[in-house]
Amino acid sequence: MLKRALFAETLGSLLLTGVVIGSGILGSGLSPHNGAVALIGNTAATAAILYVLITIFGPISGAHFNPAVTLIFALNKEIRWPAACAYGAAQVIGCIGGAMLAHAMFEAPLLQVSAQDRSGLAKTLAEAVATFALVLTILGTRSAKPGATPAAVALVITAGYWWTSSTSFANPAITIARALTDSFAGIRPVDAPGFIASQLAGALAALTTSKFLFPYKRHGEAT
Amino acid sequence: MLKRALFAETLGSLLLTGVVIGSGILGSGLSPHNGAVALIGNTAATAAILYVLITIFGPISGAHFNPAVTLIFALNKEIRWPAACAYGAAQVIGCIGGAMLAHAMFEAPLLQVSAQDRSGLAKTLAEAVATFALVLTILGTRSAKPGATPAAVALVITAGYWWTSSTSFANPAITIARALTDSFAGIRPVDAPGFIASQLAGALAALTTSKFLFPYKRHGEAT
Amino acid sequence: MLKRALFAETLGSLLLTGVVIGSGILGSGLSPHNGAVALIGNTAATAAILYVLITIFGPISGAHFNPAVTLIFALNKEIRWPAACAYGAAQVIGCIGGAMLAHAMFEAPLLQVSAQDRSGLAKTLAEAVATFALVLTILGTRSAKPGATPAAVALVITAGYWWTSSTSFANPAITIARALTDSFAGIRPVDAPGFIASQLAGALAALTTSKFLFPYKRHGEAT
Amino acid sequence: MLKRALFAETLGSLLLTGVVIGSGILGSGLSPHNGAVALIGNTAATAAILYVLITIFGPISGAHFNPAVTLIFALNKEIRWPAACAYGAAQVIGCIGGAMLAHAMFEAPLLQVSAQDRSGLAKTLAEAVATFALVLTILGTRSAKPGATPAAVALVITAGYWWTSSTSFANPAITIARALTDSFAGIRPVDAPGFIASQLAGALAALTTSKFLFPYKRHGEAT
Repeated sequence: MLKRALFAETLGSLLLTGVVIGSGILGSGLSPHNGAVALIGNTAATAAILYVLITIFGPISGAHFNPAVTLIFALNKEIRWPAACAYGAAQVIGCIGGAMLAHAMFEAPLLQVSAQDRSGLAKTLAEAVATFALVLTILGTRSAKPGATPAAVALVITAGYWWTSSTSFANPAITIARALTDSFAGIRPVDAPGFIASQLAGALAALTTSKFLFPYKRHGEAT
Repeated sequence: MLKRALFAETLGSLLLTGVVIGSGILGSGLSPHNGAVALIGNTAATAAILYVLITIFGPISGAHFNPAVTLIFALNKEIRWPAACAYGAAQVIGCIGGAMLAHAMFEAPLLQVSAQDRSGLAKTLAEAVATFALVLTILGTRSAKPGATPAAVALVITAGYWWTSSTSFANPAITIARALTDSFAGIRPVDAPGFIASQLAGALAALTTSKFLFPYKRHGEAT
Repeated sequence: MLKRALFAETLGSLLLTGVVIGSGILGSGLSPHNGAVALIGNTAATAAILYVLITIFGPISGAHFNPAVTLIFALNKEIRWPAACAYGAAQVIGCIGGAMLAHAMFEAPLLQVSAQDRSGLAKTLAEAVATFALVLTILGTRSAKPGATPAAVALVITAGYWWTSSTSFANPAITIARALTDSFAGIRPVDAPGFIASQLAGALAALTTSKFLFPYKRHGEAT
Repeated sequence: MLKRALFAETLGSLLLTGVVIGSGILGSGLSPHNGAVALIGNTAATAAILYVLITIFGPISGAHFNPAVTLIFALNKEIRWPAACAYGAAQVIGCIGGAMLAHAMFEAPLLQVSAQDRSGLAKTLAEAVATFALVLTILGTRSAKPGATPAAVALVITAGYWWTSSTSFANPAITIARALTDSFAGIRPVDAPGFIASQLAGALAALTTSKFLFPYKRHGEAT
């Protein structure tokens, strides 16, 4: 039922983005002089909610929360294009709602413009790498051990927050929402398009790689 | 057998609250100048004991340890109202006992009055959000993957400690006990009623949402 | 085969204690001004190795690595007294060996006398509480979900490191070994007997509690 | 199909090393005055990606990513020597590629020479111990609970990063790559041969030990 799926994508994207941005605000507020401590809290919160949301929403919508992931499944003919477009809209709306919710909880203006500079080729490369790793993990666990997807996605993002110079957004809808927060997790609007293009390139590279590595993946299983 | 269930609820609530308060005391004592480091320890300890307690007490009492959760199951007709009231009393007694135990271990007065200001609409909103997420997780895992409940509850609280401005009490019985400790995890008694009302509102919203999202949930399974 | 079991108990106790003491040395060396950061590393390392050792040695010896646990199984008639005594000796020898190994890796004298003051009734109470929680977890997961024992034991110790004022030794053999290291994880020899008596009392209380809470536990399963 | 296996070994080694080195650069940059905080991030990222990579590549290549592990399986007659040599080459190439990728993401020279002093008998001993623990874990979970291998390997490395004075490289191919980075995770080229010899000795000791402890291990299962 598409209506339930779209609601799950919206609510899941909202909670995910709320956690990403809210934990950044709390962490950097509590640890102003050591960004690594803030990042530990940010990472733990993000990974934790990913496990939860993929577990409970997986059977309903596939728990994408991410236009790059939905694109891959559409190219794989596992979701039809009209539904995929609706998914994308739900994800962007949910992510922006999540940013507003986080701001409301911390008594900040509901929508802001980020001043966080994330420019440069190196960070753009990092987003391609991060999204490649994320999509490879999704397609790989589906092939190797479907029950491990929630933990594996949480953990590939845990690694991504730390090993990429961009801290692994790996998600165009969250990138848009993060442009609307002037906090730890933000990104200047001018830097967002490059991140998104890079994320899509990384996702496509992962799809190609997975066709060689996981040729026998099961179809019809949305996460 | 209700007697065993009530004992499990009391002992579980006691250990859970002991961990919440005790780890706050230890963490803030060891890291007086960086509250985020203390919160990392507080989070890890809380999540860890939640996994343990829900795993071992789940088959006995459903491992609620939380009047908001018991209320949801009573409204869902999965626990009768007299038993639910007894659960609530056991939870409050257990949580207060846990605060006293933590204080005893750290050579502090057994019962105290918190001076920790947690007032304001934003923090009240945060409690509704935190409890919404907790109850949705409980009802969602029951529907999607019952064996994942202990890990998912531990992880939604992990996220809650970091992404909400209230650090996610999400539990009326623990809120009462936390009013009785003048330490890291405390809350001024005057702020407690607003937290509790907000928690109940969040739990009811999650119940309504879950009826749409998880319509085929299994009955008769207490967690 | 008792010989294999004793070897597993010795090697497991050695690795466990090596991790407890070694990670304390490394953590406090890297974070001399924030003991909470050192404790985070100490906790993560201890929990991690517990999961590993219980998983791989569980089928061989039951993976006790702890005279208090062996005592409980002996009282429960699941291990005979001569074997239990041999287990205890293996555990003490292994734990002392682990202390020596940690010291060797950090170029410190192989055996030392701890000057770490852990006296007082509050810390003694804490050891009883910590061991009560540990033994209840072991007996509880055995009854509720045997496959969860490695994770649950790792997590109850994670919580214990943070919520008890004694940082949860919960193990007489490790207590002896920790008296022989003058580092982060140490304990003055004069404080050790009180800790050990308290640990045994906590273990016995857990056994009694479990007879009421988990009356249908399966026999003949060593972890 | 050897071609797919070699590609998996190369890509997995690349991602693993990228995470090890990249998270070291990010962590030490964000926490210049507290190396333990950087090590927490480094540990979490490494453990997380190990779980992911072993889960998704395990069915394809066995997910060794480590010449010491491949050697053990070759001695155990579970992989033929020509394939083992190809595995080793793929691992070294992948690990060096991972170092270059991490450097590219952080705008550093692609290949560097480490100045990080890791000399001395104590650190060499530590590498033998770390590799012993790693290989024992791989062989032990295979015997006791094959599904636990990804988590157990991630966790034995978590412990290793903290309890050994060498921070547990435990992998000759990663050791070579870490000689080529002048960052947190580096090692002077002159110290690398001692580390590698020690790693191989530890792996062989684990193989011998496992023949006594896990005599009934299943053959034909590559991780």
